[in-house]
Amino acid sequence: MSRQAGVRPAVTAGSVTTPGGVRAAGGHCGIKAARPDLALVVTEAPAPAAACFTTNRVQAAPVQVSRGQIRSGRAQAVVINSGNANACTGEAGLRDAWEMVDLTARAVGVSRDLVLVASTGVIGVPLPMEALRRGIPAVATSLGPYGEAAAEAILTTDAFPKTGAVEVEVGGRPVRLGGMAKGAGMIHPRMATTLSMVTTDAALEPALAQRALSQSVARSFNRVSVDGDTSTNDTIVLLATGAAGHPPLRGAADPGFDLFQEALTALTEHLARLLVRDGEGATKLIEIAVTGAATEEDAARAGEAILTSPLVKTACYGMEPNWGRILAAVGRSGAEVDPARVAVAIGGVQVVAAGVGRRERLAAASAAMRAAEFIIAVDLGLGSGAWTGWTCDLTEAYVRLNSGSLT
Amino acid sequence: MSRQAGVRPAVTAGSVTTPGGVRAAGGHCGIKAARPDLALVVTEAPAPAAACFTTNRVQAAPVQVSRGQIRSGRAQAVVINSGNANACTGEAGLRDAWEMVDLTARAVGVSRDLVLVASTGVIGVPLPMEALRRGIPAVATSLGPYGEAAAEAILTTDAFPKTGAVEVEVGGRPVRLGGMAKGAGMIHPRMATTLSMVTTDAALEPALAQRALSQSVARSFNRVSVDGDTSTNDTIVLLATGAAGHPPLRGAADPGFDLFQEALTALTEHLARLLVRDGEGATKLIEIAVTGAATEEDAARAGEAILTSPLVKTACYGMEPNWGRILAAVGRSGAEVDPARVAVAIGGVQVVAAGVGRRERLAAASAAMRAAEFIIAVDLGLGSGAWTGWTCDLTEAYVRLNSGSLT
Repeated sequence: MSRQAGVRPAVTAGSVTTPGGVRAAGGHCGIKAARPDLALVVTEAPAPAAACFTTNRVQAAPVQVSRGQIRSGRAQAVVINSGNANACTGEAGLRDAWEMVDLTARAVGVSRDLVLVASTGVIGVPLPMEALRRGIPAVATSLGPYGEAAAEAILTTDAFPKTGAVEVEVGGRPVRLGGMAKGAGMIHPRMATTLSMVTTDAALEPALAQRALSQSVARSFNRVSVDGDTSTNDTIVLLATGAAGHPPLRGAADPGFDLFQEALTALTEHLARLLVRDGEGATKLIEIAVTGAATEEDAARAGEAILTSPLVKTACYGMEPNWGRILAAVGRSGAEVDPARVAVAIGGVQVVAAGVGRRERLAAASAAMRAAEFIIAVDLGLGSGAWTGWTCDLTEAYVRLNSGSLT
Repeated sequence: MSRQAGVRPAVTAGSVTTPGGVRAAGGHCGIKAARPDLALVVTEAPAPAAACFTTNRVQAAPVQVSRGQIRSGRAQAVVINSGNANACTGEAGLRDAWEMVDLTARAVGVSRDLVLVASTGVIGVPLPMEALRRGIPAVATSLGPYGEAAAEAILTTDAFPKTGAVEVEVGGRPVRLGGMAKGAGMIHPRMATTLSMVTTDAALEPALAQRALSQSVARSFNRVSVDGDTSTNDTIVLLATGAAGHPPLRGAADPGFDLFQEALTALTEHLARLLVRDGEGATKLIEIAVTGAATEEDAARAGEAILTSPLVKTACYGMEPNWGRILAAVGRSGAEVDPARVAVAIGGVQVVAAGVGRRERLAAASAAMRAAEFIIAVDLGLGSGAWTGWTCDLTEAYVRLNSGSLT
């Protein structure tokens, strides 16, 4: 990842069915009252597969099942339901997750060993299996180039579907990547991600696919926060169909791998930013850019403390350039800090230089915070450690959304 | 601290001037527009003194000054201003903090070596020293049994002053302790505390006073959270006048020390709970009681994760017994957890047994959450580790308060 941001491949419209060899479907099976709640993604043949899962020790039944399934390094179908997380549901929940696997294997005609399962929604309520027994075969009948329908069907509190695609040339052939993700709460770094799915027609072995996915997740989904809570269900899956027809990537030293890695990171960063933009109740997307830290680890510590500070997030909502709260967050992060060396710029307006506030610039900084997206840049003045992440503001709407009904 | 809660001394009305040998005053010097903003606490003679300070690496000027002053183990006067934190103010801020020390030493007639200083309020704005040059001598003229006035003068966004007193018998003599604290945001465990001040007429040496204070803070102020942010200014000071006239406590093995420690913890826990009850925007005080953890450390990890979860806190606001969010917080805490062994009771209503939710009890739990105070009890079913802490709900009013103006 030494490449400059300037040469990162562009993300365009597209979805999990943009790469060759992938079909998808989305539909309504009855877990939710009326909105789509069931998605299927199926590849033409068994495909090299990789996945990252939540680091939460309380792991939903579908996470337990898919963790085992992915060990083979191959998958051909992924079934995802929204509206019910099948988490904290005990042995019955595990049986239900396995039944989703079996229903999908039969409905799409693949081996049960090649089916992954993911769920998202309310915790602690048994899955309505009758709805899934009817719904999985029904939705499977509409498999086709319908990645957008699948993206719609995995949403929970999201305001909009999150999709994108990237194309790069590898070995003289166009290679495509497509993805989808869902938000919009219980989102925090140091876990895998929320529910997300990326497909590609690149050809690469499972171990290399896992390496690429873990690296891209570390630089994207693991750098966003909506509320500091991590989910019991986080899953991201990568399926690589190889349909692009280029000579398979042989390893991390293959010149094509770097291009593929860049493209994958561009796509996952795009999806991760969409998560934050659609964070529960959010009105603003804020990039936190830490530079000048003593080490890379210190940069991440400082960045994550700012990313999750309720006081910084409420100040962003109020368009208040309250740099004292930013310094207080850095101060509690564990990162080495010398207040006399810190510089802070908000929306491009430098409000702190050498640790001293510039009151005459606060009005300009506040004006810059009216934008829907802006950057909080913190330079610690100690070394070359750098880190970038994304967060959203904390608003009354977040409180209203999360103090509402269980269902 | 092996004593049962049942024998903990009762906290009664009272303040820092309840113990013998202490005078205090509170008044308005002009940092705030109209409300009291300057407090003085003065002992009859130089007194054994102890203090705990913020663990934030960005430390306000008064913290830097008082950290040096307390090394002597003796103090006679404490000056506290509210409305301005004198934090992130560079060399000029340090000069201002020292001038507050000198102004106080002159106004109350003690050596400058015996003066501690604390500030709370907005970060990054120079102190209005003219106001303090006039105000400190003026407020000093009203020193007397006015602990309540001092408690009023240290408030910032607090809705009410926080005071209390405890009396225990040590060596056949009544020993009194009195205290005050201020809230109401940037409050989180693993720091010392917010601004707080405790006095006693017990007789004990500085090292023993420090031991007692650190122990009581660990069990009270370090177990509350309002918003997960820690302040640059947190300070708690204990002054022990010895005016009670009992034989001085000789060490931790002195039978009277245990009584004193209990009394001090009862008082600091009382003040810490008041902080949470008055948490910014809070409508509820929630006790988090973790039991059955594999270790004491695990119990604290699990408890602190619940304590600071925005999703748990918003659910409390909405009176939703959303135990899935509680389990998700425990799961990300790093504590060992086996979901199949977890039990959760909310407001005395068991909603999870052996990891399985009891849907039929949610209505009763929701009803119990209508109370202004309730307990979330989590038993991990793994060992004997236990931890108790206090938090408040996260409300729209918190967002409104913290997205408002800088001043």
